[in-house]
Amino acid sequence: MQVRQRRVLGVDPGLTRCGVGVVEGVPGRPCVMVDYTVIGSDPDADLADRLLHLDRNLAELIARHQPESVAVERVFSQHNVRTVMGTAQAAAVAVLAAARAGLPVRTYTPSEVKAAVTGSGQADKKQVTTMVTRLLRLDAPPRPADAADALALAICHIWRGGTRDRLSEAIRSAKGRQ
Amino acid sequence: MQVRQRRVLGVDPGLTRCGVGVVEGVPGRPCVMVDYTVIGSDPDADLADRLLHLDRNLAELIARHQPESVAVERVFSQHNVRTVMGTAQAAAVAVLAAARAGLPVRTYTPSEVKAAVTGSGQADKKQVTTMVTRLLRLDAPPRPADAADALALAICHIWRGGTRDRLSEAIRSAKGRQ
Repeated sequence: MQVRQRRVLGVDPGLTRCGVGVVEGVPGRPCVMVDYTVIGSDPDADLADRLLHLDRNLAELIARHQPESVAVERVFSQHNVRTVMGTAQAAAVAVLAAARAGLPVRTYTPSEVKAAVTGSGQADKKQVTTMVTRLLRLDAPPRPADAADALALAICHIWRGGTRDRLSEAIRSAKGRQ
Repeated sequence: MQVRQRRVLGVDPGLTRCGVGVVEGVPGRPCVMVDYTVIGSDPDADLADRLLHLDRNLAELIARHQPESVAVERVFSQHNVRTVMGTAQAAAVAVLAAARAGLPVRTYTPSEVKAAVTGSGQADKKQVTTMVTRLLRLDAPPRPADAADALALAICHIWRGGTRDRLSEAIRSAKGRQ
């Protein structure tokens, strides 16, 4: 059976450093790395300028790579409150950029992403980077780590999306048989 | 001396209820209410849809009222963490909407706003509503309270902006005399 390739743009949100990774693949098979980058902004700059810079760069990456969906790391409330606000704002910009481009957006918790690429929701950053390097068959680990996390999100979305699609397909065909 | 009228759009950010108030005036004099509204979204709806709804409504209000600047309430880390994330995301959308429209954005803490309209940074919501109603010479208090807070932000910005402008003017003329 020929399975259609999916192209996913993953975002590891952050105001100072926002990781972006673009991956192509099909559920359950090794994926291919298309691009990765980190969008940075000066912590001393004006909030409006920082959000605008992030928005423009994300919109440009979406336009350039034409992903069919976007995966964003879900911001957690148990984190340090000061950090979480910047992360929440960067995540909002990412989700909005995808929505404005008409793309479906899915959010994943850090443990869902870790479990998808390492088999354990408790894996550390190093393990995630190692597995991303291996799964995408890269010559060297993606640097910085924010980029590796964004690539892991995209891989997670391709694989989990496959599971969801197979479920919907099974439900549809079961209903068809009724 | 003829002082130019300023039109300011104030935003009291919230994902479920986002207050917006448009006010016109000059520093130190009573302001005039132009419009106020609350942009609501369903807490059970998808985050992408909620952010997009807020973004579109804010962009539409900015286009309709053509403010020369935007004032947004600054999100505070000491609040409840769960609430603060939605508020931070709504604030990010508001700041971004203003920046994308090329407008300057200023953020104010809740106590700065309270102090500006009631004289006390510890004033309660009722007192803010009472003073907004009085300062804008409205027949009835603006409802709901989110709208009153947004109008208070706009008033605060007009008045404090005036102080800042006079300070910059004084600095400029002092430098000119050197």
